[in-house]
Amino acid sequence: MLEKLKEIVFKANLQLVKYNLVVLTWGNVSAIDREKNLVVIKPSGVPYDTMTASDMVVVDLQGNVVDGKLNPSSDTPTHLELYRNYKEIGGIVHTHSSWACAWAQAGCDIPAYGTTHADFASCAIPCARGLTEDEVKCEYELNTGKVIVEEFTKRDIVPEECPAVLVHRHGPFVWGKDPFKAVDNALILEEIAKMASRTQRIAQFDDNSNIGIEQYLLDKHYQRKHGKNAYYGQNN
Amino acid sequence: MLEKLKEIVFKANLQLVKYNLVVLTWGNVSAIDREKNLVVIKPSGVPYDTMTASDMVVVDLQGNVVDGKLNPSSDTPTHLELYRNYKEIGGIVHTHSSWACAWAQAGCDIPAYGTTHADFASCAIPCARGLTEDEVKCEYELNTGKVIVEEFTKRDIVPEECPAVLVHRHGPFVWGKDPFKAVDNALILEEIAKMASRTQRIAQFDDNSNIGIEQYLLDKHYQRKHGKNAYYGQNN
Amino acid sequence: MLEKLKEIVFKANLQLVKYNLVVLTWGNVSAIDREKNLVVIKPSGVPYDTMTASDMVVVDLQGNVVDGKLNPSSDTPTHLELYRNYKEIGGIVHTHSSWACAWAQAGCDIPAYGTTHADFASCAIPCARGLTEDEVKCEYELNTGKVIVEEFTKRDIVPEECPAVLVHRHGPFVWGKDPFKAVDNALILEEIAKMASRTQRIAQFDDNSNIGIEQYLLDKHYQRKHGKNAYYGQNN
Amino acid sequence: MLEKLKEIVFKANLQLVKYNLVVLTWGNVSAIDREKNLVVIKPSGVPYDTMTASDMVVVDLQGNVVDGKLNPSSDTPTHLELYRNYKEIGGIVHTHSSWACAWAQAGCDIPAYGTTHADFASCAIPCARGLTEDEVKCEYELNTGKVIVEEFTKRDIVPEECPAVLVHRHGPFVWGKDPFKAVDNALILEEIAKMASRTQRIAQFDDNSNIGIEQYLLDKHYQRKHGKNAYYGQNN
Repeated sequence: MLEKLKEIVFKANLQLVKYNLVVLTWGNVSAIDREKNLVVIKPSGVPYDTMTASDMVVVDLQGNVVDGKLNPSSDTPTHLELYRNYKEIGGIVHTHSSWACAWAQAGCDIPAYGTTHADFASCAIPCARGLTEDEVKCEYELNTGKVIVEEFTKRDIVPEECPAVLVHRHGPFVWGKDPFKAVDNALILEEIAKMASRTQRIAQFDDNSNIGIEQYLLDKHYQRKHGKNAYYGQNN
Repeated sequence: MLEKLKEIVFKANLQLVKYNLVVLTWGNVSAIDREKNLVVIKPSGVPYDTMTASDMVVVDLQGNVVDGKLNPSSDTPTHLELYRNYKEIGGIVHTHSSWACAWAQAGCDIPAYGTTHADFASCAIPCARGLTEDEVKCEYELNTGKVIVEEFTKRDIVPEECPAVLVHRHGPFVWGKDPFKAVDNALILEEIAKMASRTQRIAQFDDNSNIGIEQYLLDKHYQRKHGKNAYYGQNN
Repeated sequence: MLEKLKEIVFKANLQLVKYNLVVLTWGNVSAIDREKNLVVIKPSGVPYDTMTASDMVVVDLQGNVVDGKLNPSSDTPTHLELYRNYKEIGGIVHTHSSWACAWAQAGCDIPAYGTTHADFASCAIPCARGLTEDEVKCEYELNTGKVIVEEFTKRDIVPEECPAVLVHRHGPFVWGKDPFKAVDNALILEEIAKMASRTQRIAQFDDNSNIGIEQYLLDKHYQRKHGKNAYYGQNN
Repeated sequence: MLEKLKEIVFKANLQLVKYNLVVLTWGNVSAIDREKNLVVIKPSGVPYDTMTASDMVVVDLQGNVVDGKLNPSSDTPTHLELYRNYKEIGGIVHTHSSWACAWAQAGCDIPAYGTTHADFASCAIPCARGLTEDEVKCEYELNTGKVIVEEFTKRDIVPEECPAVLVHRHGPFVWGKDPFKAVDNALILEEIAKMASRTQRIAQFDDNSNIGIEQYLLDKHYQRKHGKNAYYGQNN
């Protein structure tokens, strides 16, 4: 069942290792088949170097395992909440990459400081509000997804324009039109998170320094790569 | 004697190199055979790339060498003190990994700032008290072990719930149910130590930022991975 | 057309990957044939691991594609403005390397703090002024080049003495007598940018510390490597 | 001439690359034959990946080239001054490794903050005084060596007890009984320099933190590895 998508999700998970975004069994990638409404996701706690494509788990949008012998990632309900709410998402990644997690642990949005950020997202990368004690104690992973959606709704951000979020005290969830694009976005997020902290550190040393990209420059870079008149790349 | 355990300890030592937790001859891994009450440990000051499984040294719990031609690690008495006190430990690792050592040199506990930490330990990673001049001058390595046990006792922490400690001005000792798990824990500790310092740095830039994971979120993550109702991974 | 230069530019682009100066499709290298007044440049948004030498694009100094099936880098007009103004430049590199971008995002020059810097440039690495809204909205990439030239003119710096610039909120442009030398310079810039920030951090901890290389020491190192009486290397 | 020592010095130079202590043509290793009073050193500005053992240059203690077709490292007079003054040194390394250079650029000693440092040196790693304008303008590299010797004499440090120095605004010179040991020491210095800066950063966040290793703990670690009753390693 969904052998081709399993292979894709398997390879996208290995890409996390290649990009140094995960250690041990940390992190997971999923993808959705929008016609069948089925999601393929990494099994929970399985090492990357012994994992095979056939270990991938197929679940429906309600979280029932419909194919696979292993338990799906414990973060599966978060993935499903995002797939249910955001029809344009084809793949989702969760990692504990160090710089993105540091921003999440600090409870801070990653501000848009430069064009590397603007090439990626049209706004700051939001850090969602923390979950309440009740939200943590019952249906924690589902509530994690709900809080992400709540944050995007409250801030009036659409997921195409900002392919990542920081879960408070936890770490990043990142998405894309397919799982490989989602993994690329997880790598970009880590680069941006690192660069932003370094920017703050350099600016702190110089009293005259101000940081924060100008809105017109952010718009320019975002639009030249993602807008309808985009001219970056080969497909425009 | 204990050929199989020597092979395991040898491989676990090489894992330290693979994980970039050691340079040169730094660091050591040991394991215990609880039935025979014998400990296998890396020889002192031997380079990883010429070391063989048969170089591993077997000592009894009093530190007498019972097999092997080389001197055991100079940190052996610390390992033995931990094995004598903590029956649930099967393997122990000592490294000079950079971030964990930096916390140890600063004399600071690593605070629990997020879920990466909570997946690993149920409390801050303690930095033990410094040794007195007398404790350093006589039986230094044994006293290092005693101070670790004293710190855990004083704080009422059990070693299963916190698989690592920082020795003041020195560096980490880390353990697990077997030596491979201990090495994995040494890698996780380094990730947590790095992430915690980065979290502080980001938070320092934002006056409104508060850091420190909420107790209910820490409990949730620790329990979902380690509690009796754990649902992370495949063996629950 | 220009098959040899295409091969060189292709290889110089791959060198960016080897030096860890780029991820994904970020960054680009170009070179100029000064006899034919033609520039060879990386195509826009093409992954390094599938790119071939024949994918390189040839443009004239007005930006017209004269050979190649792909779109040239979207930064091409910046490269051309530099080639038009600086006849001594043979190759140009643009990256989003993390430390150089952090300085650019902070809007700060990289001060000359030591001899590693002095071996590379005879002055601080300038961060050019930010572009105005009008300059961003119309002919953005051309204006980026113009602002670089304006900054060097205003500061009375010649490009041979300072082979790099930081574009405000964006990142580095770096050059050399050929594209390989330009890539080497991009690597040196990243090392210098990293070292400078670390120098500030260490100096901040020590109230008595002053930083900034003495002018006579800067001159000595710059001259021993680049002056007419240079004695570093084999060709003097 | 000295073919065996050329081979050793060649391999020790490549070790700098393996340890990530140099980029491009930066850095150099030398060794001395104390019987013949001849020094073998890396040629100036030659890339590591095309260099061969026969490219190594032989100079006498006055700096005359006695064998080899290439120019010796421009830092040769610094090496020779150290060999002339310190008979116990068999190999010398100079690098621009990032953390050690950052301390040198800040003009700060690397304080002894922990046992990793104490395993290496019995005191802070000194940053020598800056050279005067006259010392820079005439016989710069010789004067660099003289200032190192002056600093060690003034502080009453012997080179066996502290195998490294920071040249002000420049970077580290490191030594050992042979060139491989000197390269190992350059690696240790970089680890210590990194760890010390991270220690300061963590301590800055905690008002109660004090840093600086206790003298008795420093002595213990230095003596257990280097003293006459040393018990680290296999040769005691």
